[in-house]
Amino acid sequence: MIDETHNPNLTSWVADANGHGDFPIQNLPFGLFSPADEAPRPGVAIGDHIIELEALAAAGLIGEAPRDLSDVLGTPALRKTLRQQMSKLLSDPQYRAVAQAYLHRAADCTVHLPVRIGDYTDFYVGIHHAKAVGALFRPDNPLLPNYKHVPIGYHGRASSIRPSGVPVVRPHGQTKPADSDVPVYGPCKRLDLELELGLWIGGGNDLGRPIPLEEAEAHIAGLCLLNDWSARDVQAWEYQPLGPFLAKNFHSTISPWVVTAEALEPFRVAALPRPDGDPEPLPYLRGESTVYNVELEVHIQTAAMRDQGLAPHVLSRSSARDAMYWTPAQIVTHHASNGCNLTTGDLLGTGTLSGPQPEQAGSLLELSHGGKVPVELASGEMRRFLENGDEIWLIGRAVADGYVTIGFGDCMAQIRG
Amino acid sequence: MIDETHNPNLTSWVADANGHGDFPIQNLPFGLFSPADEAPRPGVAIGDHIIELEALAAAGLIGEAPRDLSDVLGTPALRKTLRQQMSKLLSDPQYRAVAQAYLHRAADCTVHLPVRIGDYTDFYVGIHHAKAVGALFRPDNPLLPNYKHVPIGYHGRASSIRPSGVPVVRPHGQTKPADSDVPVYGPCKRLDLELELGLWIGGGNDLGRPIPLEEAEAHIAGLCLLNDWSARDVQAWEYQPLGPFLAKNFHSTISPWVVTAEALEPFRVAALPRPDGDPEPLPYLRGESTVYNVELEVHIQTAAMRDQGLAPHVLSRSSARDAMYWTPAQIVTHHASNGCNLTTGDLLGTGTLSGPQPEQAGSLLELSHGGKVPVELASGEMRRFLENGDEIWLIGRAVADGYVTIGFGDCMAQIRG
Repeated sequence: MIDETHNPNLTSWVADANGHGDFPIQNLPFGLFSPADEAPRPGVAIGDHIIELEALAAAGLIGEAPRDLSDVLGTPALRKTLRQQMSKLLSDPQYRAVAQAYLHRAADCTVHLPVRIGDYTDFYVGIHHAKAVGALFRPDNPLLPNYKHVPIGYHGRASSIRPSGVPVVRPHGQTKPADSDVPVYGPCKRLDLELELGLWIGGGNDLGRPIPLEEAEAHIAGLCLLNDWSARDVQAWEYQPLGPFLAKNFHSTISPWVVTAEALEPFRVAALPRPDGDPEPLPYLRGESTVYNVELEVHIQTAAMRDQGLAPHVLSRSSARDAMYWTPAQIVTHHASNGCNLTTGDLLGTGTLSGPQPEQAGSLLELSHGGKVPVELASGEMRRFLENGDEIWLIGRAVADGYVTIGFGDCMAQIRG
Repeated sequence: MIDETHNPNLTSWVADANGHGDFPIQNLPFGLFSPADEAPRPGVAIGDHIIELEALAAAGLIGEAPRDLSDVLGTPALRKTLRQQMSKLLSDPQYRAVAQAYLHRAADCTVHLPVRIGDYTDFYVGIHHAKAVGALFRPDNPLLPNYKHVPIGYHGRASSIRPSGVPVVRPHGQTKPADSDVPVYGPCKRLDLELELGLWIGGGNDLGRPIPLEEAEAHIAGLCLLNDWSARDVQAWEYQPLGPFLAKNFHSTISPWVVTAEALEPFRVAALPRPDGDPEPLPYLRGESTVYNVELEVHIQTAAMRDQGLAPHVLSRSSARDAMYWTPAQIVTHHASNGCNLTTGDLLGTGTLSGPQPEQAGSLLELSHGGKVPVELASGEMRRFLENGDEIWLIGRAVADGYVTIGFGDCMAQIRG
């Protein structure tokens, strides 16, 4: 599946695409955007620009354009054809004169969620995160007995997922102070981020029909970055016995460009072997299975840092490959293993992808040791949890020797009071 | 809001509506149905018949018809106007000659889900269920400390909700035998039902804007019955630390007719007072709040009972009023209390509505004391959990002195291997 669209020598006549950190011509992610105040329409990101698909099709420059990006997610053949056509169109200078009329500066556009999200499920496959959070509650026994057998997941809220840039309103909720038997309702005091990847499901399964592991990757249409904002104080009080609810469902932020499975093909690598002594997966989860080699970062910029003209501070760096105990294919197969029907446009979060070292954690809960040890920022400010005015960026880059690095675009939001 | 449409003396020219257990003229629920193999269309159930709304509007018999039932859910004024018009049309014999052309025998129709369900949330407000299930795990401390402060809820799966009549395929899943350290994957052995009411949300709130308690009932468009099928053995192994997932998301069955808030108005009653010594709700959940006086039953008919011509066996009887520790308004307000945005077409389950007595339980887990004491059926068969071929019916009837009882229609499914 590695073809000319991945050729590292390919360049675009959209000059700012060449050397672009996220959207060089080897990426070509799909999204839904509005130029200025116009209606939303499907497009492809290229460098600092976005090109409209329907207009290109109407001009006869590509064969057909999707009216709805769920067609792109759910139809691998359409996705591949469009990718090839767009690669040719945006690299060959002969198309520049006609195609550039349909090119918009990304800075002048609004990017929406790519599709109506059906169901949103969040997993917990980052083993270093699971261990670190478990250790805060159970120092002697951080991982529960099911963790190495079951890709743990739970349902989240689809309606409150927003694209990058939409501010996060600090949630209110019930919390129980340690020195009181009675809870209080008020603004969250332990607001946190979670660094995750999101998997876009393309093509579902019928209710009652599981997805075998060897077919699972064919149901993954693409990836995004996902920040699963979390109210830790609310979570601690509400989550027994049925799991996180209001602590998580007030807002989730994603990078709104669908970086396709085809674009990510060169970055699929074997999952790390399970540590000695770990159980083998049960047979339905056993088989050849790969992860994406995506390097991840969390950046923070406080209001004071903006005032002082300071660049964002890097809170942590990790890698999806190092973090994921279960692979994307295992996530998909497990989700459907009881007959649950996945549908095109579902979003599956990986769970927080912390690295093995404490400073590689993908949440402040971990970085601050449960809020006990504040993190010092480049500005000299201290953070246990997020303050109003803080902006959080997630950054992801797929890297492989001999290939051009591709990214996901912005996954950012500011906390508001 | 109690008006002529609730007049107990009102009768319909659709003769089988008069004395109908579910759909007398005082009910008039909305649904989406297909006559024979035709396209789905909005209709109203009346007795053993369904009448088409668009055709009535086209014939000038009603003012306007919704193209999509989300308009009915989300627009109280439209819902009320249609209710009044349909009450007049179906009671006044002068309309019979023209309107009966748009009447279909329900037995010849397929009834679909009324709308595309946005997000599905399941609560846990049945306190007798929470106590009984808690006691199986924690005999000395059945209710967790948060229960009387927090209307506990969790997110469920929208894609696997099906209308009455669609068979339930017994799920497979991971379970851990008590005598083994290693789990196995195979068919669920402890398949259960859960007797619930579902609340249809009509009209949402903006993300970041909670819904005050006094406005909450205006967001409830109607009710249905909900069977939240559960794989107890899967649940026991998977649910820590993030709650039920594959144990619940393989299928949920609802009664597909939206019994409107307007139809249920005479059946709203004050919630039972909290027992002495229970804490008051926090201020955001405190205020005048009502429940629906709905009598509930669970019936089972096994394959052997059908072969022998035996009527379904009544597994239990309970009452929503007796069971609900938190009211529908408190559920809605709590759900949005962190700023989570509810949307038209969301479905909120109450959780299992068991009565205070053990024989009033809304699940086999409770009726069989965790599978230890089998239930004897009228056929002489014994049940700890559900067997293939079993059919489960949920039945709900709203009752009030001086008013005609209204019901919800079928909420039935058969278990398949």
